[in-house]
Amino acid sequence: MHSIIDDLNWRYATKKFDPSKKIEEGTVNIILEALRLAPSSYGLQPTKILVIENPELRSKLVDAAYGQKQVEEASHLLVLTSYRELSVELIHSFISEVAVTRNQERESLSGFETMLLNYANTRDSDFLSEWMKRQNYIVLGHLMQICAQLRIDATPMEGFDHAQFDQLLSLESKNLKTDLVIPIGYRHDMDPQLQRKKVRRKFHDVVEFIK
Amino acid sequence: MHSIIDDLNWRYATKKFDPSKKIEEGTVNIILEALRLAPSSYGLQPTKILVIENPELRSKLVDAAYGQKQVEEASHLLVLTSYRELSVELIHSFISEVAVTRNQERESLSGFETMLLNYANTRDSDFLSEWMKRQNYIVLGHLMQICAQLRIDATPMEGFDHAQFDQLLSLESKNLKTDLVIPIGYRHDMDPQLQRKKVRRKFHDVVEFIK
Repeated sequence: MHSIIDDLNWRYATKKFDPSKKIEEGTVNIILEALRLAPSSYGLQPTKILVIENPELRSKLVDAAYGQKQVEEASHLLVLTSYRELSVELIHSFISEVAVTRNQERESLSGFETMLLNYANTRDSDFLSEWMKRQNYIVLGHLMQICAQLRIDATPMEGFDHAQFDQLLSLESKNLKTDLVIPIGYRHDMDPQLQRKKVRRKFHDVVEFIK
Repeated sequence: MHSIIDDLNWRYATKKFDPSKKIEEGTVNIILEALRLAPSSYGLQPTKILVIENPELRSKLVDAAYGQKQVEEASHLLVLTSYRELSVELIHSFISEVAVTRNQERESLSGFETMLLNYANTRDSDFLSEWMKRQNYIVLGHLMQICAQLRIDATPMEGFDHAQFDQLLSLESKNLKTDLVIPIGYRHDMDPQLQRKKVRRKFHDVVEFIK
């Protein structure tokens, strides 16, 4: 059980990847399948995970990520996007998925569907957009832990030009926005970050027991 | 490696916990330590994880969670809180932690500290509050995956009366707010949710390869 702690102490936000080392396809598929299984509020999964395989595009995205070379040099580049608008179609397709998976009449889910539609209709679009974005942070937390388990390095990025990412990935017409950028791969032996000890707040600065 | 997928297929949002089954203290400590190691933006960890051990308080929190009995019946109750204001003190204490851990002169970190202070000073408090909240969603994603690995059940909750939670936990005076409520423990054999198949969107609805 202690291996969980070893996994997490092993990981760090990689500054320099080894461009010659590639993650095997089978392992990439396990990671992506694990992300598909990540929980989300109501199970709605308002998320689209992009795997950017085009080298020219990755090179352009380095500039949009303020020059962070990991975007280009890591084995794989994941971009977590979520929907701009919580559409009726997204809710309908989700309810259909529930009905098919659980072999239920669609009508028996009408109460749940109405609740979700009400949730969407009674909140403004900024709130809903942020709420969908938060779901991607769950995916991110999942990804960090899974990569550590598999001894794959990852560098989660919040700092990039969101408008440029959206434009280079043609996201607006797909009703998507870029939330997080995560190069994954293998650390370079010469990554200067490797020499720096992991910093975490002390246990009792982060955890409090309420007796 | 496939065990990651097994872990995630095993988990579900538990509706009914077995109140007689308690998580061992050593396991709880591993979980909390793993959460302490979760990544956060800049490594700032603007998070306080509360472990609610007082039974009367847990009973009151059931009402504040719209009657969701898991809050009381699960083995342990975790409440993820984050700061209301990104204070200068939080940034100072973080920089001190970096200096001590890495045995660096505090002055050598002044550029990093100034950058963080500028980040805080040039954004409005609603944005910063939301940004800190998002970091807790990373903790949540971590927690879900770790619990699944340990075969511990968990029910992440976004739907509760935030003001009541903050009040019952006396958070305002601590500059904290409740973000997420997560009972953890062991599923009851009679949990009706156990009979329901897990629903997830199809792989290509969630993942897209950009060639």
